[in-house]
Amino acid sequence: MTKAQPELQLVVSEIAEEMRRRPDRGEVATYIPELARADPQSFGLVVIDADGHVAADGDSETPFSIQSISKVFTLTLALGKVGDRLWRRVGREPSGTAFNSIVQREREQGIPRNPFINAGAIAVTDVILSGHQPREALGEILRFLQFVGQDTSITIDEAVAASEQRTGFRNRALANYMKSFGVLENPVDFTLGVYFHHCAIAMSCRQLATAGRFLAHLGRNPDTGLSVVQPERARRINALMLTCGHYDGSGEFAYRVGLPGKSGVGGGILAIAPGKASIAVWSPGLDPSGNSHLGRIALELLAKRLGWSIFGA
Amino acid sequence: MTKAQPELQLVVSEIAEEMRRRPDRGEVATYIPELARADPQSFGLVVIDADGHVAADGDSETPFSIQSISKVFTLTLALGKVGDRLWRRVGREPSGTAFNSIVQREREQGIPRNPFINAGAIAVTDVILSGHQPREALGEILRFLQFVGQDTSITIDEAVAASEQRTGFRNRALANYMKSFGVLENPVDFTLGVYFHHCAIAMSCRQLATAGRFLAHLGRNPDTGLSVVQPERARRINALMLTCGHYDGSGEFAYRVGLPGKSGVGGGILAIAPGKASIAVWSPGLDPSGNSHLGRIALELLAKRLGWSIFGA
Amino acid sequence: MTKAQPELQLVVSEIAEEMRRRPDRGEVATYIPELARADPQSFGLVVIDADGHVAADGDSETPFSIQSISKVFTLTLALGKVGDRLWRRVGREPSGTAFNSIVQREREQGIPRNPFINAGAIAVTDVILSGHQPREALGEILRFLQFVGQDTSITIDEAVAASEQRTGFRNRALANYMKSFGVLENPVDFTLGVYFHHCAIAMSCRQLATAGRFLAHLGRNPDTGLSVVQPERARRINALMLTCGHYDGSGEFAYRVGLPGKSGVGGGILAIAPGKASIAVWSPGLDPSGNSHLGRIALELLAKRLGWSIFGA
Amino acid sequence: MTKAQPELQLVVSEIAEEMRRRPDRGEVATYIPELARADPQSFGLVVIDADGHVAADGDSETPFSIQSISKVFTLTLALGKVGDRLWRRVGREPSGTAFNSIVQREREQGIPRNPFINAGAIAVTDVILSGHQPREALGEILRFLQFVGQDTSITIDEAVAASEQRTGFRNRALANYMKSFGVLENPVDFTLGVYFHHCAIAMSCRQLATAGRFLAHLGRNPDTGLSVVQPERARRINALMLTCGHYDGSGEFAYRVGLPGKSGVGGGILAIAPGKASIAVWSPGLDPSGNSHLGRIALELLAKRLGWSIFGA
Repeated sequence: MTKAQPELQLVVSEIAEEMRRRPDRGEVATYIPELARADPQSFGLVVIDADGHVAADGDSETPFSIQSISKVFTLTLALGKVGDRLWRRVGREPSGTAFNSIVQREREQGIPRNPFINAGAIAVTDVILSGHQPREALGEILRFLQFVGQDTSITIDEAVAASEQRTGFRNRALANYMKSFGVLENPVDFTLGVYFHHCAIAMSCRQLATAGRFLAHLGRNPDTGLSVVQPERARRINALMLTCGHYDGSGEFAYRVGLPGKSGVGGGILAIAPGKASIAVWSPGLDPSGNSHLGRIALELLAKRLGWSIFGA
Repeated sequence: MTKAQPELQLVVSEIAEEMRRRPDRGEVATYIPELARADPQSFGLVVIDADGHVAADGDSETPFSIQSISKVFTLTLALGKVGDRLWRRVGREPSGTAFNSIVQREREQGIPRNPFINAGAIAVTDVILSGHQPREALGEILRFLQFVGQDTSITIDEAVAASEQRTGFRNRALANYMKSFGVLENPVDFTLGVYFHHCAIAMSCRQLATAGRFLAHLGRNPDTGLSVVQPERARRINALMLTCGHYDGSGEFAYRVGLPGKSGVGGGILAIAPGKASIAVWSPGLDPSGNSHLGRIALELLAKRLGWSIFGA
Repeated sequence: MTKAQPELQLVVSEIAEEMRRRPDRGEVATYIPELARADPQSFGLVVIDADGHVAADGDSETPFSIQSISKVFTLTLALGKVGDRLWRRVGREPSGTAFNSIVQREREQGIPRNPFINAGAIAVTDVILSGHQPREALGEILRFLQFVGQDTSITIDEAVAASEQRTGFRNRALANYMKSFGVLENPVDFTLGVYFHHCAIAMSCRQLATAGRFLAHLGRNPDTGLSVVQPERARRINALMLTCGHYDGSGEFAYRVGLPGKSGVGGGILAIAPGKASIAVWSPGLDPSGNSHLGRIALELLAKRLGWSIFGA
Repeated sequence: MTKAQPELQLVVSEIAEEMRRRPDRGEVATYIPELARADPQSFGLVVIDADGHVAADGDSETPFSIQSISKVFTLTLALGKVGDRLWRRVGREPSGTAFNSIVQREREQGIPRNPFINAGAIAVTDVILSGHQPREALGEILRFLQFVGQDTSITIDEAVAASEQRTGFRNRALANYMKSFGVLENPVDFTLGVYFHHCAIAMSCRQLATAGRFLAHLGRNPDTGLSVVQPERARRINALMLTCGHYDGSGEFAYRVGLPGKSGVGGGILAIAPGKASIAVWSPGLDPSGNSHLGRIALELLAKRLGWSIFGA
């Protein structure tokens, strides 16, 4: 029951306008110093439907740090490389604790619960890195983002990467912890170097929504016709986004928005309406679970007004 | 892309046949002594589509102990009674630990993580009980099941209830633990009495699939036209089933089956294909996470062959 | 280097006087309603040396609820009954978490860490109860206290016992939790009934210091000459008091006071100076770890002024 | 009731002989590859009494890797530098979990439970390092060991230090974890470098027993008359050794041996009989808690035969 294109733009613009007027904007992440410089007034929203129509409003062309959203794409790459063998190194269950928790790791012999918590994404990065130099692995990830995002200008924000390299002690703890259990195969500094850099990739809402289209359409970009993954794999990545995509707010996101999605502490969220659209939203202020405060609200309104919930329409 | 009715029956029968031939059947639950008497060879599958067509095979008319599947209906009832105030007493996040774990309780001041783990379902039962006698509350729950299941013969298996009353020490620990934090308002024995009894309700796959139809169709039974809950609430209950419906195997179920569902240690699973069908499956053997082993496999095949995954079709 | 008796009384009186003048008195326990009625101004101190000289000051004859101090005596009784087989049901390691925590239980299959945390003391009570009626077991415990306390007037404060029976949900959770693992052999209500009642035994500082004399003198009361336990067992009970006797403040007590001791939330502490003296102190205000605030300070001063630390004098 | 010198040598020799004949020798540590090369047949025992008489038997002059025993001396040094301010960075309670656990760290905002678990000892090392180069800090620690051990030949086993530098991922995780909470002030690699090296100091039983004499005699070496710490501080270090000195086997050691002690995974144990003797034992095979198997048994026999338990003699 997708609305026609002019209606879609109308809904997008209405929501963007409502968001701009809201006084509650969450808190900009400060744990990576460089991210703290983001303007909490920024807001961007882009929806690309099955026909390739683009509805956009706000700061939809401004690149922001995609942070954990990159984990969707590194997961896709790693599955492409090693297939289901990936699941020997990382689980598929929601974590039930805060987003960079180390407790659950210990109880499970170093195997991270899922590929979207930090520990899991570091393990996935280690799989991509396997047998290569960090520079090569990072180049591969970046080229994959440029390919699915259909824009060769997508690049890494080196200031953000350097900022996290200097301050990412918690991630360094997680990585060394997994290394002590043999979950990581490469030198910790190599794996973390690639991880910090792919989290620092900067993309605009338009680029991100473009990059997510293959997940909305059974693994295939409907414009180019190029298949990125098999249909089953696309469904499964969506399932993981739904159950694990928003740290300890994943249940809340499923309950309120009803779409698979992945958030990043840069304030971006990529959401997928299967068969209907790929959506990217950005607003730097975060809620206590570390997800974009206005981004989540905007997606809740969008899914409701367009009847896009996967749980009944 | 729902297949026509004759095809639906064909798919159901094929899957039932495949299941009957499989040697791996999981382990029948023994922690409630009475459940250990179930026949591991039993298998039933019923699908009711949007038009009310029923496709059934196997032991589809045999009542079994619905156990935790009752939590879907007590949640529905409690939301009807107190609305969103329910969420002051129970959370909405996946638990990330084994199905009757007490650890996460402690770290969160006695508030259970979600309404589908045992602690959460006990808290929900306490809300339904509030201000009534156990007998009245239990009567209300049973009548609700008879109403949505469209069968007044649905009843409680007193032998199972008594068996769990005698042996449910873990649940008694959970309830007293919550009571110590003031999360339960009624006497612990009252709340547990109602809880043990509603878990002991016996239903057949046909009755259970009938009872779930309102969740598949925006809160309304398409045959009777009677509305049980508002559309948004139906979607949200589905969302909770998807993220939390299978204990520590919820992520796995979403990943493999791609449908909201709720399992019970009696070997039943209720699954919802939003807009398409309500599905009940029963096979008493469980996997290590406590979910029906063949039930989950049957649903995976069904969703795949009919293209019913909510994550892309 | 024990000081002579007149000096001992002088030191005791000096300390009691200092304690009476201190404005900081801790917080009276409120989690058992009946205990909340204690007068925070109360203070008693009794020291009985190897020769049986008694130095006392303050409210040394006023009975108070000994609460967890009773665990020293139930441990002694249980070891007498089953010897080292007791250690199949309870461990000997400090717990490292708050005094009634349930978390560590879960990780260790229901086996409590030591006999002085609540779970462990409940398991010890279950051993004493084994094969008897609660009334008989309780009678045995009470008679043992009267024997070692050399006073048949020692009795149970029924109001305190009833108060905890009504409100002890956390202990009921712990007991049911252990029952679910088979750590308890008797009906949970039987074991808890005995536990709540022996915690409600009321004794004065004089009675308590008398009762502890066998621990100070290799298992034997030097006055009566009667042996309660073998020397090695007395030493080992002292060791357990030192490592586990003060909940999550056990390390602090060892560090500051340097004597084996056991505290109760009624504000009492029994401390042992091996070879030198048995000491009882009482002041109802507790510190954040649940130990008598002034009681601990008084013992620190006493051990320092008399050179009684077991860690070097 | 110290026995005369010839008797002491007799007891020491008897015990050494018994130990040499025992077939059960525990498991040599393998987690630091270099340590795995130790000969499980090695056994040394040295006791130095208050008069300076030395009773020795077995491999008493062979240097071994003191590992965690070094934590007693770094604690002494750090207390000398910053006094009780040290306790802002590390606690004083037994840990209640395995020896290098990270779980308890997380629940307490990165503050380690005590100075003898790895995390706590790393924090203590960070205090010693403060404002200096790693080489200087390490030199200071080594010179302190040479001073109290009265032997300038005491040195660092560089092969062991290098081995742990290469493989100490768990410690690297702990250090980064604390760094993320601001518990460490120096660069993680600096602090760990010093930590790995002071754990790799090699000493013989004779050197170690000599080094511990100040703890047995109120902070002062009775031979040289030189005071290392004040009496109260010596008592308190002994108290910490008793409650926290043997990882998750500390309660067991107190219960069986009844002396303050500190073990290392190299198989050494330093034990203190306050007022009576300083004792060092070495046997590389470890028990499941990571403490020297025969070392603990030898000390239990020694304390029993000489009546040295601090819990009653």
